[in-house]
Amino acid sequence: MEFKVLATDGKARYGKLKGTHGETETPCFMPVGTLGAVKGVTWNEISEMGYSLVLSNVYHLYLRPGIEVIEKAGGLHRFVNWNGLILTDSGGFQVFSLGKLMKISEEGIYFKSHIDGSEHFFSPELVVELEEKMGVDIGMVLDECTPYPATYEYAKHSMERTVRWALRSIKARTTDKTAIFGIVQGGTYDDLRLKCVELLKGLPFEGFAIGGLSVGEPKEEMYRITKLVAPTLPEEKPRYLMGVGKPEDIIEAVEAGVDMFDCVIPTRNARNGTLFTSRGKVNIKSAKYKNDFSPLDPECDCYTCRNFTKAYLRHLYVSKEINSAILNTIHNLYFYNRLMKKMREAIKNGEFQEFKKEFFSKYLTF
Amino acid sequence: MEFKVLATDGKARYGKLKGTHGETETPCFMPVGTLGAVKGVTWNEISEMGYSLVLSNVYHLYLRPGIEVIEKAGGLHRFVNWNGLILTDSGGFQVFSLGKLMKISEEGIYFKSHIDGSEHFFSPELVVELEEKMGVDIGMVLDECTPYPATYEYAKHSMERTVRWALRSIKARTTDKTAIFGIVQGGTYDDLRLKCVELLKGLPFEGFAIGGLSVGEPKEEMYRITKLVAPTLPEEKPRYLMGVGKPEDIIEAVEAGVDMFDCVIPTRNARNGTLFTSRGKVNIKSAKYKNDFSPLDPECDCYTCRNFTKAYLRHLYVSKEINSAILNTIHNLYFYNRLMKKMREAIKNGEFQEFKKEFFSKYLTF
Repeated sequence: MEFKVLATDGKARYGKLKGTHGETETPCFMPVGTLGAVKGVTWNEISEMGYSLVLSNVYHLYLRPGIEVIEKAGGLHRFVNWNGLILTDSGGFQVFSLGKLMKISEEGIYFKSHIDGSEHFFSPELVVELEEKMGVDIGMVLDECTPYPATYEYAKHSMERTVRWALRSIKARTTDKTAIFGIVQGGTYDDLRLKCVELLKGLPFEGFAIGGLSVGEPKEEMYRITKLVAPTLPEEKPRYLMGVGKPEDIIEAVEAGVDMFDCVIPTRNARNGTLFTSRGKVNIKSAKYKNDFSPLDPECDCYTCRNFTKAYLRHLYVSKEINSAILNTIHNLYFYNRLMKKMREAIKNGEFQEFKKEFFSKYLTF
Repeated sequence: MEFKVLATDGKARYGKLKGTHGETETPCFMPVGTLGAVKGVTWNEISEMGYSLVLSNVYHLYLRPGIEVIEKAGGLHRFVNWNGLILTDSGGFQVFSLGKLMKISEEGIYFKSHIDGSEHFFSPELVVELEEKMGVDIGMVLDECTPYPATYEYAKHSMERTVRWALRSIKARTTDKTAIFGIVQGGTYDDLRLKCVELLKGLPFEGFAIGGLSVGEPKEEMYRITKLVAPTLPEEKPRYLMGVGKPEDIIEAVEAGVDMFDCVIPTRNARNGTLFTSRGKVNIKSAKYKNDFSPLDPECDCYTCRNFTKAYLRHLYVSKEINSAILNTIHNLYFYNRLMKKMREAIKNGEFQEFKKEFFSKYLTF
């Protein structure tokens, strides 16, 4: 994997990330394809929107269809037939969400499948092995995702284990075809976050992520930690803010120097009828759109906005048509990619502050 | 509306149907877009598959979003943004399926909405009015769909009312921009069917449909009535067999001289994981496809077959991914259109029997 920062504007960075399966400009947003498909859209549509890097999830693929199936298919790219870049999260976050179905030890995580209750075990070594077997471009290490709120003691303990697991992950690597990113934990404690960066930054990871945010903490905490941590990460490596977020969150994080993002918001909200537009969020089921024959976002030129009215989109949503999810997802993902593109342009032109001001002058976040 | 039979082979016909919004070759299959959307696929995809005529449903659109919304949008084509031909069924069949929520009188049908229980009334005149208001290319008359089994008396009474309603429908017309098709009823009674044709064939309808089949009768009855009725309908007008059917049913009906078809089978089965291939039906959820990395149908060049394996399609189905419905629907509708195309070619070349023999030599119908 190659990464180059090609321009900066304040702390914000414009760059290029290159892997075996293509390249992407950064800052970039990764559509979430947990199970090897971005819900509601075909790979054709993903490509046409301008995406060349998507995210998938080891935990989910491990349970279904099973990593051995993907290996037999010739790797994840061939199994799902996506010719762009793939980053996989370990699924640690998902495993931690299992609550009582999960138990952490120093060795790794014991968990029960959310599908059939069967018992499994993930270690840092196994996660790297599975990611290499699937041949993904970028794999995330297994980390211990600190919940919010957490006591200082808990967060410290959890951060330290994440660092020990990071070291084990590095040792487990057998190829550099799959780049591996380390993950910074430390909860909402500044000193723990900085300590974690200090311990990880010397390790031979191809990139670093900020984990454990967007887990229920106030937005101000998320912004504070991001702004604290991002600039301390190695300049020459990509920085990825995991699971974030809303357009306004992404803009703040790009300003702090983050390069990569993923979030289920654009796709999940699309299925729930919440659409992102240049004026803010639109709840398409609202009765006020019953006879509104204007496009969803006059500034958008996605397939949905070029072809359909709010009245039709509302009708599809209210009628529970599957096409509602399709058209809404096309729009939201297009909106997110356009947002990233605008930020990249702004950084290249040294106009990030102007972009931000202009964006928020129209986009209502309440 | 214009219709021309351009070639025949036995009773089978190849023709062209032209309307305000384009044309289609016949025999043709109409994808079902009940609510103004073909579930699981975009209009782009429908066009790319080669479809130029789709079916929608007055009853469903009347309840949601309401015909007045569609009228304000500038008609159904503009509301849904489909630039091809649209035929609407009255929804009589759907209303009859309401059972106790429905009451027929000579005047029309009183019914309660399946959505909110609100009370409504459809008359033959209203259905024509609504179809003209929506500006569809072809509207079906309101008929009384005879259930199966039905006594001779019931079927006779019901057929006679359908004829009286047909006359009222003709009188209600105010434009020829929307063509109106009459519907032949008469249950599984040969003399009633022939009597119905005799009473309807002189009326100024632009086409005729065979209704009341595929309502639970044995397949042999469906074939018998189709083969009896189709050849007695006016030669110069299109013949439409409503709600039929499976590939084998369509082939038999084309052989009998039917030009148009609609059915939820390709789209509904797609969502249920049943796929049509040149070798017969495939139940994609079967465990035997877990590691099957071959395409669904090696003879198919649809987006799904060109890009994905049975193992991936099974994974999407088993994981309940929305993309399963999308990819399966693309395949099944493509399969149906290809079937119609092959039949059209065969008729033009005077090789319909050869086509049929070849098809069934590979396609297993058990």
